[in-house]
Order: sequence, then structure tokens, then C-alpha cells
Amino acid sequence: MNYKKIGSILGKIMILEGILMLAPLAVSLIYRESLRHILAFVIPVVVLVLLGALLQLLKAQRSSLYQKEGFALTALVWIVMTLFGAIPFVINGDIPNYVDACFEMMSGFTTTGSSIIADITAVSRSTLFWRSFSHWIGGMGILVFVLIFIPESNDGSSMHLLRAESPGPQVGKIVSKMKMTTRILYLIYLGMTVLEVIILMLDKPIAGYEDDKLFFSLLATFGCAGTGGFGFIPGSMELFHPFSQYVMAIFLILFGCNFSLYYLLLIGKIRDVLRSEEFRSYFLIIVLAVVFVFLSLVGRFEAFPQVYTMEEAFRYSLFQVASLMTTAGYTTTDYHVWPMLATMSLIIVMFTGAMAGSTAGGIKVSRIVMAMKGAYVNIRKLINPRYVPVTKFEGKTLEQKTINDVFAFITLYFFILIAVMFLLAFDPVNGQAVTIISDAGAYEVKHGFFSNFSAALACISNVGPAFEAVGPYASFASYSWFSKILLTFTMMLGRLEILPVLILFNRRTWKRV
Amino acid sequence: MNYKKIGSILGKIMILEGILMLAPLAVSLIYRESLRHILAFVIPVVVLVLLGALLQLLKAQRSSLYQKEGFALTALVWIVMTLFGAIPFVINGDIPNYVDACFEMMSGFTTTGSSIIADITAVSRSTLFWRSFSHWIGGMGILVFVLIFIPESNDGSSMHLLRAESPGPQVGKIVSKMKMTTRILYLIYLGMTVLEVIILMLDKPIAGYEDDKLFFSLLATFGCAGTGGFGFIPGSMELFHPFSQYVMAIFLILFGCNFSLYYLLLIGKIRDVLRSEEFRSYFLIIVLAVVFVFLSLVGRFEAFPQVYTMEEAFRYSLFQVASLMTTAGYTTTDYHVWPMLATMSLIIVMFTGAMAGSTAGGIKVSRIVMAMKGAYVNIRKLINPRYVPVTKFEGKTLEQKTINDVFAFITLYFFILIAVMFLLAFDPVNGQAVTIISDAGAYEVKHGFFSNFSAALACISNVGPAFEAVGPYASFASYSWFSKILLTFTMMLGRLEILPVLILFNRRTWKRV
Repeated sequence: MNYKKIGSILGKIMILEGILMLAPLAVSLIYRESLRHILAFVIPVVVLVLLGALLQLLKAQRSSLYQKEGFALTALVWIVMTLFGAIPFVINGDIPNYVDACFEMMSGFTTTGSSIIADITAVSRSTLFWRSFSHWIGGMGILVFVLIFIPESNDGSSMHLLRAESPGPQVGKIVSKMKMTTRILYLIYLGMTVLEVIILMLDKPIAGYEDDKLFFSLLATFGCAGTGGFGFIPGSMELFHPFSQYVMAIFLILFGCNFSLYYLLLIGKIRDVLRSEEFRSYFLIIVLAVVFVFLSLVGRFEAFPQVYTMEEAFRYSLFQVASLMTTAGYTTTDYHVWPMLATMSLIIVMFTGAMAGSTAGGIKVSRIVMAMKGAYVNIRKLINPRYVPVTKFEGKTLEQKTINDVFAFITLYFFILIAVMFLLAFDPVNGQAVTIISDAGAYEVKHGFFSNFSAALACISNVGPAFEAVGPYASFASYSWFSKILLTFTMMLGRLEILPVLILFNRRTWKRV
Repeated sequence: MNYKKIGSILGKIMILEGILMLAPLAVSLIYRESLRHILAFVIPVVVLVLLGALLQLLKAQRSSLYQKEGFALTALVWIVMTLFGAIPFVINGDIPNYVDACFEMMSGFTTTGSSIIADITAVSRSTLFWRSFSHWIGGMGILVFVLIFIPESNDGSSMHLLRAESPGPQVGKIVSKMKMTTRILYLIYLGMTVLEVIILMLDKPIAGYEDDKLFFSLLATFGCAGTGGFGFIPGSMELFHPFSQYVMAIFLILFGCNFSLYYLLLIGKIRDVLRSEEFRSYFLIIVLAVVFVFLSLVGRFEAFPQVYTMEEAFRYSLFQVASLMTTAGYTTTDYHVWPMLATMSLIIVMFTGAMAGSTAGGIKVSRIVMAMKGAYVNIRKLINPRYVPVTKFEGKTLEQKTINDVFAFITLYFFILIAVMFLLAFDPVNGQAVTIISDAGAYEVKHGFFSNFSAALACISNVGPAFEAVGPYASFASYSWFSKILLTFTMMLGRLEILPVLILFNRRTWKRV
């Protein structure tokens, strides 16, 4: 284990986090918050920069990193970022409990958006900003960020880091001319972010929050870009005007696309974009899910409290599918009480997630497509044992090794989901009644199987809100500290796609080489 | 496609089913049931034997079967058995609807035990017998049965059939000296069945059913041996005395073992049995699950209606874990209202199922163990890319190909589970309230997510009862005909382990070769 090198990279990350924290500090100053709120960011900034600088004194004998070191480092980076990022919440008192604060921060960086804050109106501006800003940082990957701005030796170390942090089964084109391309991808990310903020600014202000247009547009966009989804006013996006809701739904779908596609668009290869199988499958799933949710809302084959106009039913269907499939988790209405067909459509897109190479979580559409193709190959082989598969994906031959990795990943995904549900079963909150107040009225739900199932799914897929007792109008606050730590790890498992986190806990990783 | 050969084998199966139906016919005569009840079995017996004999006239040019034909035939056999086996229920009026009757019959042959009969006391003896007897027939496999008693050419055709029908990832030792070994396995099956009936007869009779001791002992044993689990008096096994409940729990666990182990025992290789990794894992899971369920029942960390003595809590824990893990589905108390820890422990054993080569359904313990080993290999490979895995399972090197097949199978298992849940979402029963009356009192549940989740799981794992609106004291009767047909296929998918059924629906299977 190349401890010194890892220490030095961790140090750089800490300095970076210190710099990033200047943003919420600025917000705190602009809104003239109390000294305690200002110090809440000043102290960690100073600590981070000093500690980070100290770590730069480490001189590594070997400058390169092995694959396992790259993977373990990636997991470590996310843990360190979370542990330090949570400090302001404890100091300013918005989230007094450190376990809660870490949950919230991990939820932010992993772009999950599950929250343990029960009353969002009691929270300061700087806290709201830092939470949402963490989505934007985490969306494209913390390490990617570092790799662009800090010079590194070109020995493949960075490739291992990128591989560990990029969502989806293959990095493919991103790795080739990595640094250059990554910079372009980040520029696209930044450009789309600015564009969304500007468009959201065109809408009329929300009643009661007339002075907060820019602030809210920024926070809403951070959540869309990173597909995070922390709310910052009661009812998530319920109070936003239809125009803004449509804009956000469209941007969510755009941020759920593989960023390489935008690169292809920029260099004029539109045909390649339209031919992408993952892109087509992604849109097909969105369209189907919207249709099913919409039909179940207007058909009213099953009773549910809200009464929607046709336009509302369409808008809410589009928004909710876009929000849950890109694993952002914003909501505009209480979808928990919707009919079963809507529920199952939403659960399925929470599993699939959006495209690989986007900011979204979940299994990823490309893996689903590859698994289907792999299953088909297996059936063909049974029908004709001499059959030699020539399966293609995105125009290239789909290797059996890739299919196997996909099957292994999906199996692990479900195993972890079940394991998390089993551990949540120890929580004393199970069986307790929770009162929910939403646009569907006030109703009581029991914290039961569906709560734990959807909580585990919402965390591993980095969605955020779940169903039942942890639904869109509830919070994760009721879980015990044990469950919160468990779910914090689940979010990290989901964001880093399992293996880097598991590597961290294998003793062989820590042997001296 | 060798249609003629397939037709001739199907004919033999039909004759066999006709002969097997003489047993419920005898029951009908013994209990002096009405003419209609007697004819209900006489008519299908005559039809089956005549049609079957007619199909024997087909002369096949090629006597052997290709793999795909073997697989498709296996699926066809189960469909034909079900379609004919369901006829008596419609004629005698116990299950007037043919779709319901097919659901019940498929549930019987696949040893699922899910029932659409709402009031079991309104059903005739011959119906009760035929339902439970179908568990016993289906447990060891219909085709295996045929292969033993009807001479077949030794050209490998029979191996394909066996492969398609045997539960678990590998047939291994069974195939080698197939016919001989299979006969021995069937003798063991028969012997254990007789033994259980005798031991159950030692118990005192159930109050109110004094004259039914032999009849009940037989039916209970059929359900244990085939790990089916159809109830025949109200409350499943609730009214049975503790002695019988313990006996059944132990026999369930025994029938959940790989039958090859008994063969090894018979030839004195006790050490091989104790060294079997699957055997050890199987017992470890049972012990852990019983401990967790027991602790959650005596700890009462979560409120639930029943009050158990320590002995009851232990007995019910043991019985329920044994019953759900071997995917029988007998119950002695309303486990649906138990605390979440018990619920999750039971859900997990419903997924794992028992050992390969037993009569049980589910993913199978061996697949779970192999998947864990496979995942560990993947992590080791990431830590050290030059690592060459020497993974062993049951003393033999575990091939990468086997691990890949296991991952593919588990992925498909979960995909089908979710697909079935999605299709169940169209059922108008969703959201409706159901009143349950059990030893936990009378209470109302909504037909919700947990109902559909557990119904799909109970069918694909061939367990039988599920949770919530389709829990142990409810029935599947409330589902629409569409859902019932869907779940009927789901049971078959589970029993034949997916691929043979999927092959049946691929057009390439039906091409002339």
C-alpha cells in the first residue's frame, strides 16, 4: 500500500474541500447570518487547508498507484469529504447530531438527496446552500474534479481513480484522451448548469419567497445537475410554478444522459448519438413509464386522494419519472398514495437509473440492456449448443466477460439491497405509525416492509425519497443511528458501484506490497 | 423439432397421469362421495388413457432428442399435466372456474401450495387428496418418474430431460449412473414418506377430526415430502399437536436436503455428507434464521398480537423457518403480524430456498454460496489483477463458467420477480382492503406493494403463502384471472428454473431441424 501517495492525494482533496466551502461561507456572509453560522464554515475551512497542506509534506517513493490503491483511495476520498463536510451542520446547530450530519452530507455528495431534516424551514441559508452544492460537486465525481485541476503524473494512476468513480460499466471513450476530454465534459456540465439557472430565472417568483429567485434557481439547478434532489422549501418542488417544473423535468432527463453524447454532439456526430442503444433504451423507458403513470393517474382504476387536471397528471407523471429515473428525487406531489401501477413504474425506474456516464445512480440502463442480451444469448445457446453469439452493443462486439461482470454486478446489487433491508429490520422504528401531511391530506402509515425496501433502494440507487414512512413528505429522521450509518454506507456503495467500497474492507488491500 | 417423439412421450405422461388419478378416485369411492365426484375423476382418467394410447401410434424417425427438445418437452409436460389435472375440480364443482383450477393444479405439481380456495371446509375429500398428492408427484419430478418405469433408449435424451427438471445448478452425481441412482433416490423418497406417515400416526388425533388421522397424516406428509404445503383444514397446520408440528418441521428440513446425500449415507460415506459445503450452509442458514425469528418473538421489541410461551415461540420459529425455507409453506400461526426482524428472516429464506437436488424451490443454497464465492473472486481480482482464482466448491474446482451461470440465473430471478410485480400492478384488487381472521385476531390489510412482492416471490420460489393480503390466513382468490394465469406461469418458471419455460416461447425452438 502506497500510504504516502494516498495521503498526499487525500491532502489535496482536503484543500479542495476547504476551497469549495468558501461558497457556503460567502452565502452566510451575504445573508448576514450569525457569527456562529459564519464560524461553522470558517473553522472547517482552516482545518481542512492546514491538514491538507501538512499532508503534502509526505514524499512517496513510488508515484504510481496500483489498481487496488486507486479503488481504495476513491472510497477513502468520499469518506473523508463526508466526515469534514458534515462539521458545519454540527457547529451551526442545524443538524446537532454528527451521525445525522454525516448521513446528510453523504446523501449530498452521492447525489442521493435523502434527508434527515424534519423541518426544512428551520435551517439556515448557508446550510441549504452547502447541502445542494454538494450534489453539484458529487455529481461529476470528486476525484475527476481534482484530476483536472491538479497536475498528476501520467502513469495510469488517474485511470484507476476514474474507473472507480465513474458510474456505469465502462468508461470507454472518456479514458482515451482522458484529461482533455474530462475537461470538456466538465465544461459541458458547467454550461448546462448555467443555462438551467438562467431559464429558471425567467419564471415568476414563488409566492412568499419573492426575494429568493436566484438563490432557489441555483439550489434547484444544483440538485438537477447532480441528480441529487435535496429539497429546500416545504414540499420539495411542489410550490414551483408549472413552467419551472417542466424545465426541471427536461433538464433532469438531459443530465441523465451519458455526457460523452454531448461531446459527440459538439463535434457534430449527431447520428452516433441517435444510434446509441443506451440512449434509445433510456428514452423508451422514460416514455413507457410516463405513459403508465399518466394512465394510472387519469384512469383512476384505483382510488387515491388527489384530483388532477389532465395537464397536472401529465406534468406530475413526467416530472416524477424524470426525477426518480435520474435518481434525483425531487417531487411535486405526494406520489406515495398513487395507484399500484404508478408505484411499480416508479420502483422500476428507481432500479434502472439513467445512463452510464451521467450523474445518475441506479443499475444504469446500459447494464439492463446488456443483461437482457446476455440472457438471450444463454437461451440461444441452450436451443443450439453450437451457436456462437455475435452480440453487439453500441456497435461493438459485446464480450462475454462484460456480460458476466454485468450479471455479477446486478446480483450483488440485489444481495446488498436484501442485506440492508435485513439490518434495517433491527430498527425499533419498525411497526410504528407515522403521520404524513401532504397535498394528499393527512394520513397515517405504519413503518413496514415497504418503507425499508424503498429506503434501501432509494439509498443504493441514490434516489433520495422512498415510499410509505420514508416517502416524499417524510424524512429519514425516524431511523436509529445504526440504520443511519448503515444507509450512509449504502449510498456510498451505490455511488461508487459497490466494488471500491468492498475493497476498502478487505484486509488484503492493506498489505504492504 | 422431433414432434412425433415428443408426442409419444407426452402420451406416456398422460397415461401415467391417468393411472395416478386412480388414487383420488379410490378416495372418492372410500368416502362414498356423490356420483358427480366419482365421475370427476373417471372422465379424465378415461380421456387421458385413450389420448395417451393414441399418441403411442406416432412413429418417430429419430429416437433421440436434442437439448432444446428435451427442455421444451419438459415445460410442455408440466403444462399438459396441469391442464388435465385441473379437470376434476371443475367437474365436481369444488373449483368451478377452470383458470382457478389450473392455478391450483400448477400450484400442486410445482409444490408451491398457493391456493385460490377461500373456504377449505367446503371442499370434498377427493379434491383434498388430489391436490396434496400432486405435491408428492411434482416433488421429485414428473419426468423422472416416467424415466424410471418406462424403458427408454440410452441415447442421452433422458439426460436432457433430467437436466431441465432437476432443481439446482448441477445434476452432478445423479446423472452418472442415472437410471439406477434415480431409482434409489425414488426409493429413499418413498421410504421417508412412509416413515413420516407412521410417525405422524403416533400422535393423538386432532379434536373434531378423530376419524381422519390416517387421511390427514397422508396429506400432511405429501406436502412435506414434496415441500408443497397445501392446507386441508382451516389454519393450515395450526390445529396439529406440537408433537406433529415438530415431526413435520424435522421432516421438512430433511426433504430440503439434496437426495444424493442420503445415497451417500446409505453407502456409508457419512464424512462426505458432513463435509458438503451446501449441507453446512443450509444448516447454518436454518439455525441463524430460527435464532433471529425466535429472538424477535420472545424479545417483543416490536408489538404484535399473539402471546407465546417460550416453547411455542421456539416451535413456531423452527416450523416457520423450516416450512418457508424448504418452500413448503405450511403454517402454524399467523406469521404476517410478526415483527420486522422475523419478517425479513423469512423473506430471505424464501429467496434462498433449500438445497439443490431436493424437492424445494427458491434460488437454492448452492447458488447463493457460489455467488458469494464468485463475488469474492471478483474483489480479489481487483486487488491483485494477476490473481488466479483457485476457488473450490464441494471439493472440486469451481469453474468460472459455473459462476457466470449462477450470476445470470440470479439476475434473471430478480428480473422476473420485478416483471411479475409490474404485471400484478394492473390488477383491480390493488388498494382494496381485505379482512384477515387468524390466531392474531381479526384485522384489515390493504392489498398493497408487500402483497404483490410476496405473492410474486411465493410463486417463483414455490413457497405458497405470502404476506399481507395473500398471507397465511388469506388466499390468492382475490386476484383477477389475468394475475392468476400470470402467477401460474411464474410457479412453472420457478419449478423448472426459468430457462426451459423461456425456451418454449422462443420461435427458434419450433423450427424443423
